[in-house]
Amino acid sequence: MNELDRLIQLLSKLPGLGPRSARRAALHLIQKRTSLMAPLATSLDKVLETIQTCSICGNLDAQDPCGICRNESRDDSIICIVEQVSDLWALERTKVFNGRYHILGGVLSPLDGVGPEDLSLAKLMARLEKDPRITEVILATNLTLNGQITAHYISEMLENQGVTLSRLAHGVPAGGELDYLDDGTLRAALSARHKLEN
Amino acid sequence: MNELDRLIQLLSKLPGLGPRSARRAALHLIQKRTSLMAPLATSLDKVLETIQTCSICGNLDAQDPCGICRNESRDDSIICIVEQVSDLWALERTKVFNGRYHILGGVLSPLDGVGPEDLSLAKLMARLEKDPRITEVILATNLTLNGQITAHYISEMLENQGVTLSRLAHGVPAGGELDYLDDGTLRAALSARHKLEN
Repeated sequence: MNELDRLIQLLSKLPGLGPRSARRAALHLIQKRTSLMAPLATSLDKVLETIQTCSICGNLDAQDPCGICRNESRDDSIICIVEQVSDLWALERTKVFNGRYHILGGVLSPLDGVGPEDLSLAKLMARLEKDPRITEVILATNLTLNGQITAHYISEMLENQGVTLSRLAHGVPAGGELDYLDDGTLRAALSARHKLEN
Repeated sequence: MNELDRLIQLLSKLPGLGPRSARRAALHLIQKRTSLMAPLATSLDKVLETIQTCSICGNLDAQDPCGICRNESRDDSIICIVEQVSDLWALERTKVFNGRYHILGGVLSPLDGVGPEDLSLAKLMARLEKDPRITEVILATNLTLNGQITAHYISEMLENQGVTLSRLAHGVPAGGELDYLDDGTLRAALSARHKLEN
């Protein structure tokens, strides 16, 4: 196999790229040899060298503990539990949450053979037991079936830990048109309706 | 900017990847450090080192002239003119064409300021003048407005070169349902209809 075919094959393994778009991406890279391809090769090498998993929360960063865990201005009393690093990034983009995180590394999924021991749950328990400052745990797993099962499992696990448990609010998303929403969301939004204040 | 953000920024410049899918791709790469990320970095370096543009036809290959131009079993009498390397790849995948290629590197596009001197037309003329074995030139530019203009321009340019000019057939694509086809394709298919042989 020649080098170009090998590059296309590797690119096609990225999520979102199929064989055709991998070919287009490879050609694009070759056309932008100095402005894109060389920097990308360097960047991959640097990330391979420097980026590691935070030993406390599971975030990815050039340092361990990660920038969020080292940041002394963040609130030590709240931990937000998320499935993946991408969920942490999404929450950080909102600039609303100022606590700490804990990344599970997935969700419970009996059908795929993912059990509690495959998630970073022991680490979470150790964190809670070691750090008495933690008073609230937000269960921010996704609103999928497995995400809900996982949140439920963790809530039972933490029952006697003396921390407040919370879950992200469910409802109509900003800009959402009722007609286009799925029934589950509408049902959740209806049952969680709140009184208007006068 | 940290290394991870830099990688995401570079990935988002690939065609077909936006900011969100670039983030997903970066996370995927980090999760598959040894099986995907390291090989991709190596592959990019190798392609940067070895892949070059064929000085005869414009194809990309590790050697110059490219494998197609060097292949002695291919037909020297036909040259197929295409816009981009990706078009050459598409035709090669059919395994039907056994002649040589010539890559224009684009199409005439007055609105974008692309004129004849920006395409490899001088090289094409030189090839035809130097090589008397060439008897047919297939104009395989795309069926877009600019592709048609370019084919027309080249056909006028080659008028007195003593070669047969041809164009790919237009019509209903394999598996095409008439109801879903655009009017231009249907019109072309109608006017190029052929008699059934008994």
